[in-house]
Amino acid sequence: MALPIGSFFLGPAAENADILESFMLEALRDHVFWRRNFHPEDAPSIRQSDRATPAFDDSLIRLRQELYSLLSRLKQGAPLFSPRYLAHMTSDVTMASLVGYFAAMLYNPNNVSGEASPVTTQLELDVGRQLGNLVGYGSDTWGHLASGGSVANLEALWAVRAVKYFPAAAWLVVNELGIEGPAVVLANGQEARLEQLTPWQLMNLRTSSILDLRDALAQDPEAAALLEACVIGSQGYLQFHRHFETAYGAPLPAPVMLVPGTKHYSWVKTANLLGLGQGQLLELPLDEAYRIDPAGLGEVLDDLSKRQVPVLALISVLGSTETGSVDALDRLLAVRAIAEGQGLHCYCHIDGAYGGYAAAMFRSPEGEWVDTGHSPELFASFKALEETDSITIDPHKLGYIPYPAGAVVFRDARIREFLSVSAPYVFHETPVTSPTTIGKYILEGSKPGAAAAAVWLSHRVLPLDTTGYGSLIGKSVECARALYEALSGFESRHGYRIVPLNAPDLNVVTFLALPPEACTGAELNRFNEALYKRFAIDIDRRVFSHEFVLSKTDLGINAYRPGLVARLGNEMVAALAPEGSVTVLRTTIMNPFSAEAMADGSFLARFLSEFEGAMTDLWPSLVSDVRQAVAD
Amino acid sequence: MALPIGSFFLGPAAENADILESFMLEALRDHVFWRRNFHPEDAPSIRQSDRATPAFDDSLIRLRQELYSLLSRLKQGAPLFSPRYLAHMTSDVTMASLVGYFAAMLYNPNNVSGEASPVTTQLELDVGRQLGNLVGYGSDTWGHLASGGSVANLEALWAVRAVKYFPAAAWLVVNELGIEGPAVVLANGQEARLEQLTPWQLMNLRTSSILDLRDALAQDPEAAALLEACVIGSQGYLQFHRHFETAYGAPLPAPVMLVPGTKHYSWVKTANLLGLGQGQLLELPLDEAYRIDPAGLGEVLDDLSKRQVPVLALISVLGSTETGSVDALDRLLAVRAIAEGQGLHCYCHIDGAYGGYAAAMFRSPEGEWVDTGHSPELFASFKALEETDSITIDPHKLGYIPYPAGAVVFRDARIREFLSVSAPYVFHETPVTSPTTIGKYILEGSKPGAAAAAVWLSHRVLPLDTTGYGSLIGKSVECARALYEALSGFESRHGYRIVPLNAPDLNVVTFLALPPEACTGAELNRFNEALYKRFAIDIDRRVFSHEFVLSKTDLGINAYRPGLVARLGNEMVAALAPEGSVTVLRTTIMNPFSAEAMADGSFLARFLSEFEGAMTDLWPSLVSDVRQAVAD
Repeated sequence: MALPIGSFFLGPAAENADILESFMLEALRDHVFWRRNFHPEDAPSIRQSDRATPAFDDSLIRLRQELYSLLSRLKQGAPLFSPRYLAHMTSDVTMASLVGYFAAMLYNPNNVSGEASPVTTQLELDVGRQLGNLVGYGSDTWGHLASGGSVANLEALWAVRAVKYFPAAAWLVVNELGIEGPAVVLANGQEARLEQLTPWQLMNLRTSSILDLRDALAQDPEAAALLEACVIGSQGYLQFHRHFETAYGAPLPAPVMLVPGTKHYSWVKTANLLGLGQGQLLELPLDEAYRIDPAGLGEVLDDLSKRQVPVLALISVLGSTETGSVDALDRLLAVRAIAEGQGLHCYCHIDGAYGGYAAAMFRSPEGEWVDTGHSPELFASFKALEETDSITIDPHKLGYIPYPAGAVVFRDARIREFLSVSAPYVFHETPVTSPTTIGKYILEGSKPGAAAAAVWLSHRVLPLDTTGYGSLIGKSVECARALYEALSGFESRHGYRIVPLNAPDLNVVTFLALPPEACTGAELNRFNEALYKRFAIDIDRRVFSHEFVLSKTDLGINAYRPGLVARLGNEMVAALAPEGSVTVLRTTIMNPFSAEAMADGSFLARFLSEFEGAMTDLWPSLVSDVRQAVAD
Repeated sequence: MALPIGSFFLGPAAENADILESFMLEALRDHVFWRRNFHPEDAPSIRQSDRATPAFDDSLIRLRQELYSLLSRLKQGAPLFSPRYLAHMTSDVTMASLVGYFAAMLYNPNNVSGEASPVTTQLELDVGRQLGNLVGYGSDTWGHLASGGSVANLEALWAVRAVKYFPAAAWLVVNELGIEGPAVVLANGQEARLEQLTPWQLMNLRTSSILDLRDALAQDPEAAALLEACVIGSQGYLQFHRHFETAYGAPLPAPVMLVPGTKHYSWVKTANLLGLGQGQLLELPLDEAYRIDPAGLGEVLDDLSKRQVPVLALISVLGSTETGSVDALDRLLAVRAIAEGQGLHCYCHIDGAYGGYAAAMFRSPEGEWVDTGHSPELFASFKALEETDSITIDPHKLGYIPYPAGAVVFRDARIREFLSVSAPYVFHETPVTSPTTIGKYILEGSKPGAAAAAVWLSHRVLPLDTTGYGSLIGKSVECARALYEALSGFESRHGYRIVPLNAPDLNVVTFLALPPEACTGAELNRFNEALYKRFAIDIDRRVFSHEFVLSKTDLGINAYRPGLVARLGNEMVAALAPEGSVTVLRTTIMNPFSAEAMADGSFLARFLSEFEGAMTDLWPSLVSDVRQAVAD
C-alpha cells in the first residue's frame, strides 16, 4: 500500500487544516482539564472578578495587539511548506511532530532530569534507542536529543577525546600506584599489558578495549580516584601532556582530526572549542562525487602511521551540506582496517546530521538491512553504519520535525560515563541501560521535553523503515534525480546552459548557469550570485512575490577539483581558480509534495522557464556593467 | 496600578483556558490562510479524493491513537503550573510565550541564518538588545538566544579564551613580521607598546584594549592573515604555548578560572570541554550568605598576582542553583580593581542564568536603575552589572518562557568577531550593529526561531522593568521571604524542628528538618533524603497524589561551612563533616500564584502541617532501622 503522504502534513495549501485544528484543540483541552483536576479543592487563583477588571482587559488587549503584530511579521517568513521552496535543508514538518511538540510544551517538561520530566525523559530515551536501531547499533547503544547537529558533533568529539586519551591516563595511574595494569587490545588486534605500551600504542587502542580498560580500573577504588584527577578533562591539554612526558620520559604524540573536504563549519568550531585547534584538522581529498576518496584516505593514514601522528577521529559525512554527498563508508572502513594492521586506530564518527534518517530507506520493518534498489553504492554505505562508533543524526532535518531536535548516538553506551561530570570514574547505581536522568551525561543542561514528544509521536506514525520514513525520503531522492535529469543538458534558445554539479546521492542538486558567451571566472560567479539573489528569501522583498526559492553555496576549487573538472572541464576550472571558489545554485528537495508536483511535467517546465527568464534578464546588463567597469 | 498577574498565565486551574484557546486558534488559522495565499493558482497537493481513501483514514486513526497515548502519558508530568509545586527553578510560562512559540513554530524558522528566518532573526536580535539594556550594557552590546545556560556559559568562556590569548598571538605576529606593534593598555591603566610586554603582561591586558588591538591589526592584511593562523583557536593549546615559548624564549603562563563554591556543574563541563581542565578551576570561598567572600577573593587574587598565574575569567553568580544566592557584585568588582592596580586583570562573566531577569526589579520604565527598596545589597549587586563583561541570562528560567531559551549577552559587540569561523580577522561587510545572520557568531547552528518569537512577545506584554517582570519577580521574592519567616523557628508539638539554611536573596529557600532527638550526621541526611522522596516527583507515583512538591540539594560542608556553622552551629556541622555534604530540602517559589496563595495564611499552614506529618511519620521507623542495622 502506498504511503498516504497527504495524511502526514498540514499540506501546501493547508489542506488538512481541519485535522490539525482538531488535534491541537484536543491537546489543549486535555491539558486544561488536567490542570483543573489537580487539587480541585483549592480556591481559584484567578477569580472571575479579577478577569472583569480594566487592568486585566488592558493587559489582554495589549497581548492581542502584539500578537497581531507578530502574526503579520511572521508572514514575511520563508514558505518552507511549499513545493516551490527548493532551497535549504528544511521543509514542512509532520503534523504528528507539531501536535506532539505543542501537547508537551503545555506541560513544559525539562529533560535535564527525570524529576523535571518523568514522561518526556522516557520518550527521549525511546527515541535514542530507535535511532540506534535505525543505524544498526544494536541494543547497547546510547542516544539522546541535542539542540542541533553542531552541539551533537561537539559532544561526540568531546567524548572521543576523553576516550582517546584514557589509556595514557590509565598508564599514569598504573605507573604511579605501581600496580599491574590490565591486558589491552592494540589497533592490530594483539594483546599487551598496559604498562608495556609505547606512547604511540597508548593513543591507538581499540575503542572497545578502552571501554573495557575503564571498567577494569574502576573496580579499584584507589585507581579510580587517581584516574579522576589524571584524565585530560581534569588536567587539561597542557598539564596532561606535561605530566605524561615527565612520567614516561617521552612525549605523548598530539592527535589530528580527519575531516572530509566537504566538512561542515561546525567541525571547525569543534576543533577550536575543544582546544585541539583548527590547524589540527586534516582535510581528506574528495573524489569526483565529492565523497572522501578512499585511496586518498589510505595515503593520509599511511603517512600518519609513518610519522606516528595519532588520529582523534575520522569524520565521515552522510549527506554533506553542499551537495548532499554520501561517503562510501564501506570503502573507508576497509581502508581503516588496513591502517589498524599498521597500528593506527581511528575512532569513526559519522556526521549524518542531514543524511542519517535516509538509513530508513534500507531498513525493513523487521529491522533488517534491505537493498531496496535505490543504488548499490548508497546501500553499501548505509549498511556499513553499524561498524562505526557514533553518529550525529538530526530529527529536525530529514526527520521532518520542528527545531530544535538534533541527536547523537554512540554505539557503546559505556562511552557516556566518560562525560559524566560527577564522580566520572565510579560506577553509578542506575543500571547503564536505563538512566532516569539524561543531563548528567550530555553537554547541555536544560532542554525541552517537548522536542522528545515531537520526535516520538512522529516515529510512531512514520516508522523508521521502508514503510515510513524510508518511503518518504526515497521519494524525495527520486524527485531530486528527476530534477537532475531535467537540468542536465538544458540549453535555452538564447544559448544559456545549465550544468548540474552533482548527481544526487540524496536529495540535493547543485548547478551552475552558463551564459551564451565566453566569460571570466569572476563574471561566472557574479552571474550565479545574481541568479541566487533573484531566487533568495530576503527580508526586504515580499515573500508572496517569489515564484521559486533557491539557495546557493560556494564550492572551493581546491577541495572540489576532481568533480568540478569532470563536469566543467579543465579550462573553466582554471578560469575559476583565481576566485578560490565557484558560486553555484543549490536546491534541496525535501518537501514531499515537490515530488508529486514534479511528477507532473508542468512544474519542472515552469521552473525551467522562470530560471531561463532570469538568466536572459540578468546576464546582458551584468556583463556590460562589469566590462564597462574594467574598461574605465 | 497593580500588575494583573492573572492575565499573563493560563492559571493553576486553567482559568484562562478560553483566552488561550482563542489566541491559539487565531495563530493557527492565520497561518493556515497564509499558506493558502501563496500561489493559489497551484493545483492542490492533497485532493479531497486522497483524503477519502482507506489508507488516509488508517493513517489518521493511527495518529489519533498515538496522540491519545501521548496525552495520557503526559498526565504523569510534573504540575509546574500549581502553587503547590515549590521544587525546581521552573513554573508555569506566560501565555504570550506559549502563543508566540506556537505561532512561529508553524512557520518553523531556523535562526541560524537570516535567509531561513528573515523575521525571527530580527526578533532574536531585538531580544538580545533588550537583555543588554536590562543589565545596563548600553547600545554596543551583542546578545542572542542559546539552547540553555550551559551552552551560553560555554560560548562565553570560549570567547573569553580567544580574547585572553589574543595579545600573545598578536605579539607573535608583530614579532614574526618585524612590524611595530600598537600601544596597548595594561591592567593598571598604563600604556605600553605590544612588543615590549612580558608574558604576564600579555595575559593581563584590559578587555577593551584587546578589542582595540584586534581592530588595529585587522587593518594590516598581512598581519590579519598571519593572526588567523596564530590564534589559539587555530593552533590549539599545545602548539600555541610551544610556539610562544620558542618565539619569546619564556613560557606563557597558563591561566586558571575563578568560580564560586556555589558553581553550577556546567562550569566543570566548560573547563573540561575547552581543554582547560577541571583542575584549573579555582573555587572561591563563600561567606555566611553563600556568596563569594570579597576578602577571600582578594586573598586569591593577591596570591595569583604574586605567583603570576593569570585568570581566564572571574565567574560571579546571580542566583545560585542551590540557594539562589546573589554575589555582592559591587564588592567583588572593587576587589578586582585593586588587583588591576597590581597588574592582574580579570574578565568578569556573570552566571545570571537564573537571577539575571531579577535586574528588572531595579529598572525603571525609562531604563534607569532605581532602588525599589527590596534590599540595598541586592540593588548594589545588580547595579554593578553594567561594569561586567558578559552575562548568561536565561529567559526559560525567570523569564517564564518555555524551553529552550537560554541567552548570553556581551557588553562589547566586537567580541563576537572572535568567534566568527569564516575569516575571523577580516572586517565583515555587514555593519557590526546589525548582522542578518546569527549562526556565524555563535556556538550552535540550527536553532528555533520560535523561541525568539516566544521571548519577544512575552517582553512586549511584560516589560523588563519594575512595571513588568520586575513586579512579577519581586512578588516571588517577597513570597520566598514569607516562607522563610514561616519556617524559621518552626517546632512541632513532638519536638521536630525546621531550620532554614538561607535567607533568600531571590526566591529559593533551603531548609533542614531536625528530629526531636540527637542523631548522627548520616541519620540527619537520611531523614531529609526520606522527606525529599516523600515530596518528590517520581515516575512510579501518581502525580495527583502529591500534596506539595519539593526538591533537594546537597550542600558540600567545606564550600558552605560559614553559612552552615552560622545556622546549625559548630557541633552539628562537625557531625555532618564525615558525610561530606548535608542533604537539604529546597524550594523555589517561582509560581506567581504561590505568592497569592501564601498571602492567605492557610496555604502555609497546610504546607507546614503536611511537612510535620511527614517528619513524624518517617523519623521513628527510619531511626530504628538504622540503629538496628548498626546494632546487628
